Amino acid sequence: MPTLVLIRHGQSAWNLENRFTGWWDVDLTDQGVAEARAAGELMATRGLDFDQCFTSVQTRAIKTLNLALEAMGRLWLPVEKDWRLNERHYGGLTGLNKAETAAKHGDEQVKVWRRSFDVPPPPMETGSPWDLSADRRYAGVTVPATESLKDTIARVLPYWDSRIAPALKAGERVLISAHGNSLRALVKHLSGIPDAEITGLEIPTGQPIVYELDDALGAVDRYYLSERA
Amino acid sequence: MPTLVLIRHGQSAWNLENRFTGWWDVDLTDQGVAEARAAGELMATRGLDFDQCFTSVQTRAIKTLNLALEAMGRLWLPVEKDWRLNERHYGGLTGLNKAETAAKHGDEQVKVWRRSFDVPPPPMETGSPWDLSADRRYAGVTVPATESLKDTIARVLPYWDSRIAPALKAGERVLISAHGNSLRALVKHLSGIPDAEITGLEIPTGQPIVYELDDALGAVDRYYLSERA
Repeated sequence: MPTLVLIRHGQSAWNLENRFTGWWDVDLTDQGVAEARAAGELMATRGLDFDQCFTSVQTRAIKTLNLALEAMGRLWLPVEKDWRLNERHYGGLTGLNKAETAAKHGDEQVKVWRRSFDVPPPPMETGSPWDLSADRRYAGVTVPATESLKDTIARVLPYWDSRIAPALKAGERVLISAHGNSLRALVKHLSGIPDAEITGLEIPTGQPIVYELDDALGAVDRYYLSERA
Repeated sequence: MPTLVLIRHGQSAWNLENRFTGWWDVDLTDQGVAEARAAGELMATRGLDFDQCFTSVQTRAIKTLNLALEAMGRLWLPVEKDWRLNERHYGGLTGLNKAETAAKHGDEQVKVWRRSFDVPPPPMETGSPWDLSADRRYAGVTVPATESLKDTIARVLPYWDSRIAPALKAGERVLISAHGNSLRALVKHLSGIPDAEITGLEIPTGQPIVYELDDALGAVDRYYLSERA
């Protein structure tokens, strides 16, 4: 049976400050580091093991993966990093905290952007200090100016199809370290969650989510590892 | 001009205890961690940058690479891990410290094993606690029972030829984090050092070694980054 575990990065500096992060490359907090290590220890204790890992090109997801793998004695596993597992790009909201966003756009509008499936926030402004379109890491990539969750899904799923699903079908046990919205994309796809519900699905930081899959990669079960004996 | 930087992992627990380590998977000491970070900071300060990284499947080299990349803001770079960059396998000497080795084999014999190019130490004994031939990390690999430096070179160079040299020829800037003897193999090859001299070449931990190469990957210059202004 194919083994798939998803993990959202540990707490980041901007999770803590409640700022829209998106593609901005913030680091883990000390708590985030501890969450990542604990996730690795839990997976090792439960006898989970992997053959191939995938992560985004964002520091918080890569470090979470590295710390978890180190705790499992598995730093030597192959890791593929790809921008298509990045967090949803929050466009012009990037860098704003809750109060700033509400002051600028109004509470109701912010709720729409947070909760709607296909309404993107306003695009990132030209010259924004959070603009990463010239970052070398994205050479050859058309960095979005903003994304709805639907947009995020539209670039996560082709990566799933081209790289992750084939690994699982080849019998590899797969660990993915990624972000709230890139993981929502995968959970929506695997568990068949409707558009209107997926934006309300909260994925906690640093909690391994285990998927039991059938050979066609259909979901038989999905659970938090910490909630099963 | 192709860019190549080699770095030997930071100080490990067994470097400190003066024990033969070889393929045994010891961790970095706190000093080793600091050396790795300092190497990354130095490379960033000097404007060195990379497109592709290579390392062994041993924790001390992988962690050194990860810490250096993090210090450079380059954790997102692709990293290929391969056993052929592992440290020389020290066979039956693995796990012994200087005093134990001398007591068991005599000082003169130990010097021969340390300094000769093609005389391997005695093979690892069956049932040795340091035997890694059943480690999952080496599935599909014939784990050597012991290696001379010549043996190490014989498995490092095919990897150089098949994976590293093509990356350099394709214009990628390459960083390799590895071990005293796998790096000796590369330095011998690139700098044309004779058999009798290479075993005496000491490669310090955590010091980036810069190779300036011509387009045919011949060495134009080799120096420690810390020693050039």
